Amino acid sequence: MEQISNIEVVPCDSSHYLRPFRVHYSQNGTKKYWDFMRTHDSVSVLIFNTTAHCFILVKQFRPAVYMCEWERNKRKEKGPEEPADVHADPPPASAGVTYELCAGLVDKPHLSLEEIARQEVLEECGYDVPADKLRRITSYRSGVGVTGAKQTLFYVEVSDEDCVGDGGGQPQEGELIEVVKVPQHQALNFAYDESIPKSMGVIFSFMWFHNNMSPKFKISTSV
Amino acid sequence: MEQISNIEVVPCDSSHYLRPFRVHYSQNGTKKYWDFMRTHDSVSVLIFNTTAHCFILVKQFRPAVYMCEWERNKRKEKGPEEPADVHADPPPASAGVTYELCAGLVDKPHLSLEEIARQEVLEECGYDVPADKLRRITSYRSGVGVTGAKQTLFYVEVSDEDCVGDGGGQPQEGELIEVVKVPQHQALNFAYDESIPKSMGVIFSFMWFHNNMSPKFKISTSV
Repeated sequence: MEQISNIEVVPCDSSHYLRPFRVHYSQNGTKKYWDFMRTHDSVSVLIFNTTAHCFILVKQFRPAVYMCEWERNKRKEKGPEEPADVHADPPPASAGVTYELCAGLVDKPHLSLEEIARQEVLEECGYDVPADKLRRITSYRSGVGVTGAKQTLFYVEVSDEDCVGDGGGQPQEGELIEVVKVPQHQALNFAYDESIPKSMGVIFSFMWFHNNMSPKFKISTSV
Repeated sequence: MEQISNIEVVPCDSSHYLRPFRVHYSQNGTKKYWDFMRTHDSVSVLIFNTTAHCFILVKQFRPAVYMCEWERNKRKEKGPEEPADVHADPPPASAGVTYELCAGLVDKPHLSLEEIARQEVLEECGYDVPADKLRRITSYRSGVGVTGAKQTLFYVEVSDEDCVGDGGGQPQEGELIEVVKVPQHQALNFAYDESIPKSMGVIFSFMWFHNNMSPKFKISTSV
């Protein structure tokens, strides 16, 4: 899918995106500190296309995932006791491509979570649906050690008629997002196939759908 | 539960824990860069006590979650259009206390994932079980934007007889972990109760248990 080349890693003394802060505090009288990063809360959306009976996911190259895979391969090649070989060949780009729910940051304070989710569904996946069609599933804390942000998960049903564009995110912001359809009857196999890199949101929401929505959209499932 | 006081936030120019790197690369011929952080992969474990028919979770004060809650409260109090009030009162410590699966970093290259998980079950929760009792559920990528690390989720059944200590983590490393029992029949209500801050791993694994293990441990569930 992607061609990745000319990879170079450098230390990053001042990142516009990743800015560590340190919080000093006393816990039950004991002085402590913790380094954390400020980040925005986020929304993610499980999209089900009721015309095609499939889930709409997004797929993109994630540099952080890619670097993690590369590091892991280096350690494997050299054996656990030896230092990693920094000159090991980089893995194929596919090692950094992950399947995820349509998602976005909560960075527009005047908009509701539903409205932000609606915009992401349109921008990333090309479906135009009213905000009141978004059903809140639940919320949880992510990256509890580093960011602690709150993620809110929604579910929305779309039809082929709601599709008004190709999606793909905002190329001007460097987004290169591919829209992917996963047929309903393959969803649980997809969720538990560890050879397909994905976020936990995909696995969780597919299972949530199976438990809560399957009776409404009854087809024979393979699991 | 916790008393948190003397909170002070300072910029953190050099963190031993959070070190941003920048990767430069070409994607399909276009030059790009991305800031990311190196981190370890991790394991987490859904622990089910077959004697008491309850799940064993851990609960701890998470400074990153607490700071996130505080920021959100500041914005709410001032209204979305005004700058946040940096002098707003800090929330109660409970705002930063999250319920999580027993978990740990994969930072011992000579140990298998199962063995690392086994050690965490002992250290954090006080149950001593052999590594071959750990059943792999699945794996997924976490923090795809920032760390991209791989998390592997396990399931283990323990009994009261396996309990050899109080757990609680390693106080010498600053860990202050409380072991919490969630009765099986309350698990799904607990999972979807948004007033209880928790990681997605808790929600997902409770649902996984409900789908896959409930027939083995049949009791009347309320959901």
